[in-house]
Amino acid sequence: MSNEGTTLYLGAFVDELVRSGLKHMVVSPGSRSTPIAVLAAEHPDLKIWIQIDERSAAFFALGLAKSSRQPVALLCTSGTAAANYYPAIAEANLSRVPLVVLTADRPHELRGVGAPQTIDQLGMYGSHAKWFMEMPLPEAAPAMLRHARVTASRAMMTAGTAPAGVVHLNFPLREPLLPNLDHPQLFADARRDNSQAYTAVAEAQAGLSEAVLQQLAAELSATRKGLIVCGPHDDPRFAERVIQLAELLQYPIIADPLSQLRSGAHSKRLIIDSYDAFLRIDSIVEELQPDVLLRFGAMPVSKPLLLYMSKHEQAKHIVVDEAGWRDPTLLVAARVMAEPAIFCEQLAAKLGQERKGDANADSAWLKRWQQLQLSSQEVLTEAAAAEAAGGLFEGSVVYQLQQLMNRHSTLFVGNSMPIRDVDSFWRTDDKGIRMMANRGANGIDGLVSTAMGVSAMQRGTVLLLGDLSFYHDLNGLLGAKLHGLDLTIVIVNNDGGGIFSFLPQAQLPNHFETLFGTPIGLDYEHAAKLYGGQFQRVYSWAQFQQAFQQAQASGGLQMIELPTDRAVNVELHRSIWPKLAERLAAES
Amino acid sequence: MSNEGTTLYLGAFVDELVRSGLKHMVVSPGSRSTPIAVLAAEHPDLKIWIQIDERSAAFFALGLAKSSRQPVALLCTSGTAAANYYPAIAEANLSRVPLVVLTADRPHELRGVGAPQTIDQLGMYGSHAKWFMEMPLPEAAPAMLRHARVTASRAMMTAGTAPAGVVHLNFPLREPLLPNLDHPQLFADARRDNSQAYTAVAEAQAGLSEAVLQQLAAELSATRKGLIVCGPHDDPRFAERVIQLAELLQYPIIADPLSQLRSGAHSKRLIIDSYDAFLRIDSIVEELQPDVLLRFGAMPVSKPLLLYMSKHEQAKHIVVDEAGWRDPTLLVAARVMAEPAIFCEQLAAKLGQERKGDANADSAWLKRWQQLQLSSQEVLTEAAAAEAAGGLFEGSVVYQLQQLMNRHSTLFVGNSMPIRDVDSFWRTDDKGIRMMANRGANGIDGLVSTAMGVSAMQRGTVLLLGDLSFYHDLNGLLGAKLHGLDLTIVIVNNDGGGIFSFLPQAQLPNHFETLFGTPIGLDYEHAAKLYGGQFQRVYSWAQFQQAFQQAQASGGLQMIELPTDRAVNVELHRSIWPKLAERLAAES
Repeated sequence: MSNEGTTLYLGAFVDELVRSGLKHMVVSPGSRSTPIAVLAAEHPDLKIWIQIDERSAAFFALGLAKSSRQPVALLCTSGTAAANYYPAIAEANLSRVPLVVLTADRPHELRGVGAPQTIDQLGMYGSHAKWFMEMPLPEAAPAMLRHARVTASRAMMTAGTAPAGVVHLNFPLREPLLPNLDHPQLFADARRDNSQAYTAVAEAQAGLSEAVLQQLAAELSATRKGLIVCGPHDDPRFAERVIQLAELLQYPIIADPLSQLRSGAHSKRLIIDSYDAFLRIDSIVEELQPDVLLRFGAMPVSKPLLLYMSKHEQAKHIVVDEAGWRDPTLLVAARVMAEPAIFCEQLAAKLGQERKGDANADSAWLKRWQQLQLSSQEVLTEAAAAEAAGGLFEGSVVYQLQQLMNRHSTLFVGNSMPIRDVDSFWRTDDKGIRMMANRGANGIDGLVSTAMGVSAMQRGTVLLLGDLSFYHDLNGLLGAKLHGLDLTIVIVNNDGGGIFSFLPQAQLPNHFETLFGTPIGLDYEHAAKLYGGQFQRVYSWAQFQQAFQQAQASGGLQMIELPTDRAVNVELHRSIWPKLAERLAAES
Repeated sequence: MSNEGTTLYLGAFVDELVRSGLKHMVVSPGSRSTPIAVLAAEHPDLKIWIQIDERSAAFFALGLAKSSRQPVALLCTSGTAAANYYPAIAEANLSRVPLVVLTADRPHELRGVGAPQTIDQLGMYGSHAKWFMEMPLPEAAPAMLRHARVTASRAMMTAGTAPAGVVHLNFPLREPLLPNLDHPQLFADARRDNSQAYTAVAEAQAGLSEAVLQQLAAELSATRKGLIVCGPHDDPRFAERVIQLAELLQYPIIADPLSQLRSGAHSKRLIIDSYDAFLRIDSIVEELQPDVLLRFGAMPVSKPLLLYMSKHEQAKHIVVDEAGWRDPTLLVAARVMAEPAIFCEQLAAKLGQERKGDANADSAWLKRWQQLQLSSQEVLTEAAAAEAAGGLFEGSVVYQLQQLMNRHSTLFVGNSMPIRDVDSFWRTDDKGIRMMANRGANGIDGLVSTAMGVSAMQRGTVLLLGDLSFYHDLNGLLGAKLHGLDLTIVIVNNDGGGIFSFLPQAQLPNHFETLFGTPIGLDYEHAAKLYGGQFQRVYSWAQFQQAFQQAQASGGLQMIELPTDRAVNVELHRSIWPKLAERLAAES
C-alpha cells in the first residue's frame, strides 16, 4: 500500500504541476527520484528533457524558462546532484526566472546517519530560493492528495509571480520506488475534471492610484532634462509603451542591449545605443546634467553609464520595478512598485489626457543626446566594420552578427567581454532580434546550457561567448546531441580571460598570465567532434560570413571560432575612444 | 591608504594560513578575489593551482586534501563562482576532508542592490560548512592585523580537527583591488619571527578512561562471536592496530576496500574481503549470528553487509568514531567517541595485560568466517580471471588492475558500479595500494578532478570510473594539461548508467532507457585529444594489460577505455551468485 501512496500522491503532484501550466521538466538520472521521474515521463502533457550533468540541467531549464517566460521544473536524485543546481539557482533568483526545483531525498530515518548519497537538503539553497518546502512522505489519504495538488499549484504560482524565482521542494522517498502506472486513479482528481486546475490562479495587475499618477505626470512633464534608462528587461509589451511615454515627455531612452529596445519594429528616434562610448568623456558627463532619471529593468551593462548616473546625484532617480531592489548607485529617491509596461501605459494615458505631451517639444536636451548618438554611432560602426590590421577585432564580431542574423532570431550573449562588446557595437535595427544573457549574477558558467535551453524553444538561436566561458560549460553541448537541437555558437577565442587586460590587474607582470590571463590552449575542434557538432575556425570576416551562413543553413550544433589576440584587442578597443573624443570635440 | 589595509590585512591572513600549515591553494581566476590571489601567489611558501571551472577546482582541492590529509584552501571571485564549489563542499563535509574556502565578495554597500556578479554569499553553504565567518573590510590597524592572523589560524584548526570539514570565510573587498607587493611590512608579524605560527595549535589525543576500557575489555573478551567491521577509513596507523586487537579477540575483520586493510604488509589472516558475495545467501546470513559488532570508519559499500548488520539486531552494535553519527542501521547500542587507531591500541593493551588474549582461540566462529572467505575468494577470483564469452566483464577490470598496479600506488575508484566491483573483486594483497573514493555523498560528480588532485600528490595514481561519471567531470581533465600531472584513467564504458540494470527500475520497459539507461554515445578519444591525453580502447584483457603498462610507462594524462555491455554485464554478475551458493552448500 505504500506503493499506492507513492503512485497517487506523487501522481497528483505531477498532474497538478501540469494543470497549473508546467510544460517542461528537466530530469537527471538517479534512483531515489525514480517515482517522480517515471510519473512525469508517463504524463501525456509534459515534455521530459534528460541531462546527465545536473549543473548543465539546471542552466538548460533556466534557458527554457527564460525563453518561454514560464516556470520549468527540475528533478534530480539525492546527494551532491542537488548541489550542482546551485549556480543556476543563484542566477535564476537574481534574473527572476521561474524554476520549480524538485529534489528527491532519503526518508527521515536515513538522514544524517551515513546512508549513501544523502546530504542535508533542507533549505540547501538558502536565500536563493523564494520558497522551500520539505514534503511529507507520500500518502494516498484524501487530505494528502489535496496537499499534493495544492502544493504543486502553489509552487507554480510562487515561482511565477513577481519577482519570479526559484521554488525548492524536497521529497523524502522510501522504497519501493516504482509507482504503479496501471493504477486507475493515476492523474485523476476526485473533485475536478481532467483539464481544470485544482486551484486556478488569477494574477492581478496592480495599477497605480490616480494620486500617484497625477503627481508623477505633473512632475515629469515639468521636467525637460529627463532621461529614461532601460536596463535588461524582457517583456514584449514594453518597447512600444516606453517609447510612447518617452515621446510624450521628449526624453531620450538609454537602451541596454538586453532591454529589447535596440532591435524591433518600433521607432528608434529616441533610442540612444552608443552612450557607453560617449559617456567615457568627462566633459560630456559634466555637460549632460539630468534633472530626472526614470529607470526600468535591471542594471544596465555599461560601466560609463553607471558612473554617469552615480555622478549626477542632483537628479531625481526614479526606479519603476514591481519588486526587489536593484540600484547600486544608492541614489534612488522614488521607487514605483509597478510592472514597467503597465506603468508606461498608465502614465502615458495620464500625460496624454492632461497635457497632450508637447511641453518638451523641440527640447535642446533631447537634440544634444541625439547628436551625440549620431556621431558616436558613426565612429563605432566605422571601427567595427573595418578590417583591423593585426588580427580580428572582437568588437567587429558584433557588427558582423548584426548583419548576418535572421529576423526574429535570438542572440544569447556571454558575460565578461561579449556582453560589453554587444553593448558597444550593436546598433538599433528593425530585425526584432531577441537579446538574452545571464545577467542576474553575470557568471561565466552555464552559458552553453542556458543557450541550449533557449534553442530548444526558439529557432535560429546564436550564442556568442568567450573561450573560457565555453570551456566552463562544455558539458552543456551534450544537450544538442541528446535532443537534436540547433544552436550556432560563435566562440571568440583569445585563449584566456580577455577582460582582465582592460583592468588594473594587467599592471602585475609577475602574476598576470598565471592568475588572470590564464591561457588554457584548448583546440575546440575536438569538443565539436566529441559532441557531434560542426566546427569552423575563421581568420577573416569574409570567412566568418561564409561560415555563419553555412552554419545557419545546416542546423544542428554548429561552432565557429574566431581566434583573437588579447593585447591587440585591447589596443583596438582603446584606439576608438580618442577618435570619438576628437570628433565630438570638433562638433561642439 | 585603503590599499595599505588590503595589503597588510590580507597579507597577514595569507601568511598566517601558511604558518598554520597551509601548503596548497586552488585558485580560480576572477577580479574581486585579486588581492588574495596576488598575495597568495606572492607568498614564497604556498603553491598555487589554477583551475578555471570552480566545480573542478573544489574537487581538485578535495583530492589534494584527501591525499595529504591536510587542509587545502580554495579561492574564487564573487557570484556563481562560489556556488560551483557546493558539490565538493557537501562531499568534503561528509567525508571529513579539511577545506578552507575563501570567497571574495562585494562590499556591503554593493550587496543586494543589483551590482554585477553579486549573490548572497553569507552562509551560502548552509549546514555543509562547519564554520562560516563574514570577514571585515581589510584594515591595517594593529587590532585588525591580529584579527587576520587569529582567523587564519582558527580556520586551519577548525577545518582540520575532528570531524574535519569545511570552513567558509567571505571577504568583502573594495576597489582598488591591487595590493602593494613592495610594502616593507608584507607578511611580517610584529609579535613573532617569520617562521612561527601566531597561535600554535596542539591537538590532544583523547584517551578513554580506565573504567570504560576495563568494561569494554571484559565485555569483548567474554564474547566469542564478535565481528569487527571496518568501513572507509584512511589512517595509516590503523591497519596494524586493529589487526592486533582482532588477534587478541580472535574476531574476523570485515574489510571494506576503503578501509585500507585489503592491501598492505599487515597480516591478512583475519581479514574477510568476500563478505559481499556470501552475505547474499540467506541461509548464511541466518547462520552467522554475531553477538557483538565492533565498527570503525564510515559505512561500508556493501549492501548485503548492511542488510546482514540490520538483520542482527540481537547483536550489540558498537561504533567507535571520534565524532559524528554514521549508522543507518539505527541499531547502535554503544558509541565510543575515540580515534579508531588510538582506541585499538588502548584496548589491545588492556586486553593484553588482563587476559593474554587467548580466550577466543580455536574459535569455531572465526573458522567458519575464514572458510566462507576462502571458498568465496576462489569463486570470485575464478569469475574475475576468466575471459567471459560475450564481452568484457566489468568485474574483471578490478582483477586485472590488482595484478597490474605498482606497489604503493593509488587507486581512486568511481561511485555507482566501480566501487561495488572493487568491493566484490579486489582481494587482499601485500602491495600497499591506497584505495580512495568520494564516499561522503557517493556522487558521480567531480571524480576526475578529485583523482587529479590526488595525482598531484601521489605518483602512479589510477582512476577507475564509468562513462557517465567521466562525462560529468570532463572539465577536470584540464588539470593534467595545466599542471603536467600524471593520471591513468580507466573508463568502463557501458554507454549509460550501468547500475540501474541491477535495480527494479529495469522492469520499466517504456521508460528505462530514457530515464535510467541514458546512453550518451560519446567517443572519448576526442576528449583525450581536447586535453592533450593519450587514449587507448581495448577489447581484450591482453590488450588491456599492454595498454596499462604503456600508459604507466608514458606518464601524463592516459585514458584506457573498456567498452562493455550493460545487459551482458548484469548476466555475468548474476551468474556468480548461484555458483557460489552451490559451492558453499556442497561444503557445509
